[in-house]
Amino acid sequence: MGRITARRRVTRIRRDQPTAVRADVLAVEEPLEIRVDGVRFVVTMRTPGNDVELAIGYLVSEGIVAAGSDVDTARYCAGTDADGMNTYNVLDVTLAPGVSGPDPTAARQVTMTSACGVCGKDSIDAVTTRSRFDPAVDPLIVKPDVLLELPDRLRAGQSVFDKTGGLHAAALVDGRSGELIALREDVGRHNAVDKIIGWAAAANLLPLREHILQVSGRASFELVQKAAMAGIPVLSAVSAPSSLAAELAEERGITLAGFVRGDSMVLYSRPDRVAPP
Amino acid sequence: MGRITARRRVTRIRRDQPTAVRADVLAVEEPLEIRVDGVRFVVTMRTPGNDVELAIGYLVSEGIVAAGSDVDTARYCAGTDADGMNTYNVLDVTLAPGVSGPDPTAARQVTMTSACGVCGKDSIDAVTTRSRFDPAVDPLIVKPDVLLELPDRLRAGQSVFDKTGGLHAAALVDGRSGELIALREDVGRHNAVDKIIGWAAAANLLPLREHILQVSGRASFELVQKAAMAGIPVLSAVSAPSSLAAELAEERGITLAGFVRGDSMVLYSRPDRVAPP
Repeated sequence: MGRITARRRVTRIRRDQPTAVRADVLAVEEPLEIRVDGVRFVVTMRTPGNDVELAIGYLVSEGIVAAGSDVDTARYCAGTDADGMNTYNVLDVTLAPGVSGPDPTAARQVTMTSACGVCGKDSIDAVTTRSRFDPAVDPLIVKPDVLLELPDRLRAGQSVFDKTGGLHAAALVDGRSGELIALREDVGRHNAVDKIIGWAAAANLLPLREHILQVSGRASFELVQKAAMAGIPVLSAVSAPSSLAAELAEERGITLAGFVRGDSMVLYSRPDRVAPP
Repeated sequence: MGRITARRRVTRIRRDQPTAVRADVLAVEEPLEIRVDGVRFVVTMRTPGNDVELAIGYLVSEGIVAAGSDVDTARYCAGTDADGMNTYNVLDVTLAPGVSGPDPTAARQVTMTSACGVCGKDSIDAVTTRSRFDPAVDPLIVKPDVLLELPDRLRAGQSVFDKTGGLHAAALVDGRSGELIALREDVGRHNAVDKIIGWAAAANLLPLREHILQVSGRASFELVQKAAMAGIPVLSAVSAPSSLAAELAEERGITLAGFVRGDSMVLYSRPDRVAPP
């Protein structure tokens, strides 16, 4: 509980300056499984804290409750993870007598196998699908300048963003030459990435060895997972990654770059592909 | 198809300048139902276009396919909406012989009732839950200055964002005085909003009459839906809304403000609450 931020060793690269390894602070992202009367209702990736509020608010949004009196209790599951610790990542909401629970035919089931132990390393196994590709062994070495130039080129290619200010973008880039191979826009960041990966899959280009996936916003756990499934060794984001994005990237052997802006960037995992030791 | 942008009449307010009604361009957001071998697999809110890529990419991310040869066909559903038009919002992917479909116990079911007619107005009914509150009749009138000052105050309250650069925020604000009543941060925008609404619900404060919900990023369909379920009459976003966010706000009688920055903002629905005619 209260794990709102996490510290992580990162590598900072600035143009024309020495590379520095230092500690950085990341926003924590962890799964919360919300149960209603003991039955799993949804799993959401969230920043821990105010979890009871989150669960009740979610149930309001789904039309199940509308007042505190509709909820009898909201308690963390008593179970523990492999280390015997309560992860505080499973919350069971008991509805007050007379309040109808979710329509079972409309339940939002999410792929989850774990009981109470969804936390950190465990949660990665619980919520990810194993890839048939292994980006960890990808031999790509990227020149820092190739990465630093990508946000501007992504922005230049966003024709619909120019009109609306309302679209995310993802681009597939040749990791050696920096050539922009495909760019897609969507209101959803994950959709823009799916469009890129689907285009490549349909053309039988998977795994996308020696490629970079550049995204316009932040790097979530979900985007790292998508890169892993497509065998992409480098994920580069204009903004911040979450803690779980960095952890999953490390585990999958993906280089995760964040805050790629102008003359600097931060590497959260596998810095050896950009800044060889 | 190709409905990537939509035009909409909006009201632009600038400090110390006359209010102007003009046409604006919004990024389109519509649901896409992805079926695998005829069975609904997921519904995602996306910008239309490259839908086959999106569907295949989603199936790659889920570990179901990894190459074009794993897919036999990908076709829009032949059904039509109430007006007899194909909405191009249902795509059926047929897997190649020998390729295993989704694990039925792990299916991501989403609340959807419509068959093929998920589009625009129809889709609003299909994917929303009716609220027991009616923000349309909320008598709140908001001074433009109250709204214009909110992004700075939201930003000032984001203590964790300061450390990580990686969190969205949502705030509940008294619509008359502009007083900031609650602020929550999360890696997920929808979670930050759920935390606000859950806090208010637990305190038996719903419906949140005469309140403003201020969010740090863009305004999606989902956020408008959450505001409607909590009875909030005004949703204000720092960035752009999607087309469906504006349409749902109009239908629910919610005032939707976007691009609220410095000295100006754009009203996408119910401008009468901010700029009385």
